[in-house]
Amino acid sequence: MPDIRHRVVVSAPLESVYQAVATSEGISEWWTRGGVQGESVEGSKLEFYFGGPDPAAVMEVSRLSPEGSVEWNCVGGADEWIGTRQSFDLSRQGDETVVLFTHADWRSPSEFMAHCSARWAYFLLSLKSLVETGQGTPFPEDLKF
Amino acid sequence: MPDIRHRVVVSAPLESVYQAVATSEGISEWWTRGGVQGESVEGSKLEFYFGGPDPAAVMEVSRLSPEGSVEWNCVGGADEWIGTRQSFDLSRQGDETVVLFTHADWRSPSEFMAHCSARWAYFLLSLKSLVETGQGTPFPEDLKF
Repeated sequence: MPDIRHRVVVSAPLESVYQAVATSEGISEWWTRGGVQGESVEGSKLEFYFGGPDPAAVMEVSRLSPEGSVEWNCVGGADEWIGTRQSFDLSRQGDETVVLFTHADWRSPSEFMAHCSARWAYFLLSLKSLVETGQGTPFPEDLKF
Repeated sequence: MPDIRHRVVVSAPLESVYQAVATSEGISEWWTRGGVQGESVEGSKLEFYFGGPDPAAVMEVSRLSPEGSVEWNCVGGADEWIGTRQSFDLSRQGDETVVLFTHADWRSPSEFMAHCSARWAYFLLSLKSLVETGQGTPFPEDLKF
């Protein structure tokens, strides 16, 4: 099954990047300020809002390891997303942190998948900016494309 | 074989986007100002420089169609790139142009491929910015990550 995979290097400690992807507060500062509802704990669900009355995505948190791993299973939202998995694998590289992001198990390499691929890259650079400078570009301040 | 695929919408006529991907002058304003050597005509080779004495990539131009298609075959550069293919498929959508970019036929979904995936998304947003505003972020002015 086709996957989206991006690698981004962040000039910050692994712990700082982990906080930004493992907590609702962190995620809201680089992905969506439209709302992140739910508790970010293993087995719980997170709802992500992007301006509409319903969540654009609902993820079950399947793994949270402070050593550098966050994994979600998509259980609600866009039809093409349901059944896909997102993971953020963090590793140290000198003073920097490497983020290997995967959005796996798409049913087909659709044009929507290509759209999401570019969008994820954009938001991973928002994550980088947030951790390095304190300022991300989450929805609704994101560039529209 | 795994592919990188990104979709980006540009608020500009198709012809403007085509000029930016089909000509050396255009490419140098969104991908690399380090040098684009060679003639962008079908069957010819283009060399792309990113600061080193040798080209970082050499592409054979396999298709140039002003209706909205540019295709390259990578014949030199990073080992993992050789034998891969890049394509830019442009289509009109109202007043906008949809760019569907594919970097196809990677041998394996390596960490370098994930790096290149994020880098291509960044440079496609540079292309969007160039065509919409006259200002891209090509090498060496690009964000390093």
